[in-house]
Amino acid sequence: MGIMRLGYAHVRVTDMTEAKNHYGSTMGLYETLEDVSPEGNKRTFYKGWDEWDHHSVVLEEGGVGVVKYGWKAQHEADIEAIENKAKTFGLTVERMSAGENPEVGDGIRFTTTSDHVFEVYHSQTAIGTEVGTHNPDPFPRHLVGIGVPALDHSLITCEDPKLMEKLLMDVFDFYPTERIQTSLEDDHELAGTWLTSNNQIHQMAVIGGPQGKLHHFAFRLDDWSQVGHAADLLTMDDVAVDVTPTRHGITRGQTTYFFDPSGNRNEVFGGGYLAFPDRPTNVWTVDQIGKGIFYHSRELNERFTSVLT
Amino acid sequence: MGIMRLGYAHVRVTDMTEAKNHYGSTMGLYETLEDVSPEGNKRTFYKGWDEWDHHSVVLEEGGVGVVKYGWKAQHEADIEAIENKAKTFGLTVERMSAGENPEVGDGIRFTTTSDHVFEVYHSQTAIGTEVGTHNPDPFPRHLVGIGVPALDHSLITCEDPKLMEKLLMDVFDFYPTERIQTSLEDDHELAGTWLTSNNQIHQMAVIGGPQGKLHHFAFRLDDWSQVGHAADLLTMDDVAVDVTPTRHGITRGQTTYFFDPSGNRNEVFGGGYLAFPDRPTNVWTVDQIGKGIFYHSRELNERFTSVLT
Amino acid sequence: MGIMRLGYAHVRVTDMTEAKNHYGSTMGLYETLEDVSPEGNKRTFYKGWDEWDHHSVVLEEGGVGVVKYGWKAQHEADIEAIENKAKTFGLTVERMSAGENPEVGDGIRFTTTSDHVFEVYHSQTAIGTEVGTHNPDPFPRHLVGIGVPALDHSLITCEDPKLMEKLLMDVFDFYPTERIQTSLEDDHELAGTWLTSNNQIHQMAVIGGPQGKLHHFAFRLDDWSQVGHAADLLTMDDVAVDVTPTRHGITRGQTTYFFDPSGNRNEVFGGGYLAFPDRPTNVWTVDQIGKGIFYHSRELNERFTSVLT
Amino acid sequence: MGIMRLGYAHVRVTDMTEAKNHYGSTMGLYETLEDVSPEGNKRTFYKGWDEWDHHSVVLEEGGVGVVKYGWKAQHEADIEAIENKAKTFGLTVERMSAGENPEVGDGIRFTTTSDHVFEVYHSQTAIGTEVGTHNPDPFPRHLVGIGVPALDHSLITCEDPKLMEKLLMDVFDFYPTERIQTSLEDDHELAGTWLTSNNQIHQMAVIGGPQGKLHHFAFRLDDWSQVGHAADLLTMDDVAVDVTPTRHGITRGQTTYFFDPSGNRNEVFGGGYLAFPDRPTNVWTVDQIGKGIFYHSRELNERFTSVLT
Repeated sequence: MGIMRLGYAHVRVTDMTEAKNHYGSTMGLYETLEDVSPEGNKRTFYKGWDEWDHHSVVLEEGGVGVVKYGWKAQHEADIEAIENKAKTFGLTVERMSAGENPEVGDGIRFTTTSDHVFEVYHSQTAIGTEVGTHNPDPFPRHLVGIGVPALDHSLITCEDPKLMEKLLMDVFDFYPTERIQTSLEDDHELAGTWLTSNNQIHQMAVIGGPQGKLHHFAFRLDDWSQVGHAADLLTMDDVAVDVTPTRHGITRGQTTYFFDPSGNRNEVFGGGYLAFPDRPTNVWTVDQIGKGIFYHSRELNERFTSVLT
Repeated sequence: MGIMRLGYAHVRVTDMTEAKNHYGSTMGLYETLEDVSPEGNKRTFYKGWDEWDHHSVVLEEGGVGVVKYGWKAQHEADIEAIENKAKTFGLTVERMSAGENPEVGDGIRFTTTSDHVFEVYHSQTAIGTEVGTHNPDPFPRHLVGIGVPALDHSLITCEDPKLMEKLLMDVFDFYPTERIQTSLEDDHELAGTWLTSNNQIHQMAVIGGPQGKLHHFAFRLDDWSQVGHAADLLTMDDVAVDVTPTRHGITRGQTTYFFDPSGNRNEVFGGGYLAFPDRPTNVWTVDQIGKGIFYHSRELNERFTSVLT
Repeated sequence: MGIMRLGYAHVRVTDMTEAKNHYGSTMGLYETLEDVSPEGNKRTFYKGWDEWDHHSVVLEEGGVGVVKYGWKAQHEADIEAIENKAKTFGLTVERMSAGENPEVGDGIRFTTTSDHVFEVYHSQTAIGTEVGTHNPDPFPRHLVGIGVPALDHSLITCEDPKLMEKLLMDVFDFYPTERIQTSLEDDHELAGTWLTSNNQIHQMAVIGGPQGKLHHFAFRLDDWSQVGHAADLLTMDDVAVDVTPTRHGITRGQTTYFFDPSGNRNEVFGGGYLAFPDRPTNVWTVDQIGKGIFYHSRELNERFTSVLT
Repeated sequence: MGIMRLGYAHVRVTDMTEAKNHYGSTMGLYETLEDVSPEGNKRTFYKGWDEWDHHSVVLEEGGVGVVKYGWKAQHEADIEAIENKAKTFGLTVERMSAGENPEVGDGIRFTTTSDHVFEVYHSQTAIGTEVGTHNPDPFPRHLVGIGVPALDHSLITCEDPKLMEKLLMDVFDFYPTERIQTSLEDDHELAGTWLTSNNQIHQMAVIGGPQGKLHHFAFRLDDWSQVGHAADLLTMDDVAVDVTPTRHGITRGQTTYFFDPSGNRNEVFGGGYLAFPDRPTNVWTVDQIGKGIFYHSRELNERFTSVLT
């Protein structure tokens, strides 16, 4: 299979105390480790209640934006295969040792054409979930706040989405589920692309913009009811909301966007269809981009396209 | 009991063909009569699938805005009692004959201090529902479009909301469930008020603005899932959306606003709590009006406060 | 208006510790008072998070079943009017003093033809809600368990439902929203009747069975999503479930039934339509009683009709 | 990747007219072909609205139960690889020619140890969906009945589930997401197993029982609201319901079971978590099988375990 999923997002926050309040009390992530980075920054590691690996979100104090993404490969052997494909693509790949990331095994690291750092690993300490695996309840009896089950995907910006799409396809064997194009003609330009290696409608999406930036990272929810409930709690907790509950045309997902106290954009994302590699890619033309992104309002707002970290 | 509910809203539309497409095919109202008004305007009468009386919405071609509201009184004797209270309040009341409105019995008519025309009646021809009353299914098997069950409430504007509140309380025995005030002090001014005579969280709401204007009239839905589904259909039918799905702080209702082809604002409204006359009135101060109206975004948009018909 | 709503249900439980765990931790009611009854029994008083009066559920240790129901009248004067109607009906009415029930004012008490004790009162100490009335959030940020907002209705049994319906209509001015009849003919017998004085689809329902028994009392929920979530929590808390999530044909409500640790049946109830006195009463014939009670399975189970307390 | 998904279920029905009413009008599948089988039986081919391949359900008149399952492989080369693994497993594999199944390419066919016929193919004529792939709406504006988007999975019975699990793992590279075991000890017996090759929580489940039988095949829905709505429509259409809306402990899915007019069991299935090969398998012990299958009632009913086709 190769890449199984987006394993972790490592992001910067300006203030760890505020950030912990947000990701712990409001989002309901489980804190699994606190430490200090080699550079001397405070870090906090989190997992969602339905994740069994040690962490899926890493916060690091100092600035904003994404430090790196971790991608979990199914087989030990996938790492070398991906390393070779990355080198063939022309990327510079370095080996990553077990323990460079706490509880994460060895693997590789490279900087993408979009100027994001990707790590690929095969093992992370499995610490299990609160409900366990023996006659498990469907969710923990006492969830905190929104109680997000898991990290889902991320959207990044770069100057050449087409090249980044090619990287994800060539190196990770991803396939595009949805695209925004300037036209349906062969000579179209690519304004955005949503890619996955599995049945998740996207693990990584890429839109045109500055290099190396984070648009948002998203947590999974079950459905529209949970999205609405999440939005209620965001107001109660005075979280800055970016986009109130709506549906995406692209992916069909149901969503709310908001900002962590440092200004990094988060999303809770439910619904969406099952992706399959033989499913014809949906193509949106830029004249319908409003409907593609926000199906109900049918228009983009300035903030959504300009605020990045 | 006096006034049981808002029985009908009679509104103007610029083009009957477009309007019928909207109220019939998108909203899913059942057309019950087409005729021509005494003034020579085309009219169409509609009811929701869960309404047993002949009509709850009347469209009249020519212009926009509200022609009048009909209020159904529980008892024949309520009409005279309300007439007396209206006269005591200082209003000019005229008698309305059976048949002045098709399928509606006799009653009274007066113009409010807000410059809206109110009719009060006791009888309207009961034509029943598609599911009937004998071992009825919970809803018709083949609903059209959004399939709204019933008219719910309306919001109007006027220069003196406090006076209009007094009118609704003195003449209709309504009580306020929610208010927007300039402060919590005794000398506050009233920016808006939500009133009812029963357990519906509001039958009529009044906010400050020009005299005689319609802000919106609303159809009832069951819940947040139906609100989301309605918003999907509005996009499919190219209906101009004003406010995408969200929750109100005021009333707790879940909502989407949109415009009919003539520019009259509609709402689909679900949820909200049960009102009771002994429940303490909720008071919102104007500094929190954004949260009161749109609980998730916590800010009003310009269009919502300025576009009236 | 007369009777505004079912104000409280006072029920017996065999073990107060178990009962408090159920009504407090699982149902999420707020405990407002613990005391000892004049007879020396432990009592616990509860309210739902959305109720402002001091209590809506009273538990009393010793046995099972219902001790009495309290009905809140809108006006002080309603009490005497109801007293007169009760006497006219042939009931023996006694005066109830303020303080006989903690935090409840004076009123009247009588035993119905169904052998249930009804109290009617006008005042109960208003202690408010956690969200308050000044710019209130739509629900408390930290609900416990199912977090039921309010007591909704009760279903009782008696030998002569038709007589009990007449009592509720004559004395309380209730009207029937739904009936189960042996036929549609005039000489039908009445197997069950659902009645209300307001827009709640029922405040009290009565079915044929032994005198003085409790079938269930119900808490209100918003919608089907909340009913499903409640059922999940009931399993986590090992609550004995009677009927898994389904819809009622009668009332259209969405529901789950279960037993408190003493064996009293509870319900969580969402949805249902708005009742109005001019709405034609739905009539179910006994051949369709399965569909009327459980719309999806279309059959009654033995336990549902035989287990009473 | 190998097997991408369960591509089609080919089942027998006793009466095609009744069956078409069920699968067409109630389930809302799109009919894509009617023909006569080589044996002279009427056949009807269907797809869900969100499926782009020509068909996912094939009905064949004459009897009940499953004729065969079709599994779609991602790559042409997967077929030979699976053929080899099947032979290594000891199965007799035959080549299937393009056109043996209308609109399906060539592939292989073998009978499993459970006495079910499996076909593996790589190509099926893609006929697309009503919403298309260019700026598509999230669902068709006019769905019929329940409007199921896609075939999801099937549950079969056989005498040796452990052997059948091994077949699915060895030949199809499936992995088990959930198991029912007689104990947690190493020498446990396997009562049931849920397997997948992708992120769907199961594509095929196997429980102990007679050889070659069908327990049910399932259609996907989005969520609990859709499951409840489906159950309402099933009653309106007089479909025999087996299990009313509930949650599975196993898979966490939300579900309703019912029978087609021939007695084949169908399911609509929503929710459930995302499966991953590195996620620890959930293990249910037979003492908790009731809770595992029906999380709310916590007990199996006789019909569910005994009625097979």
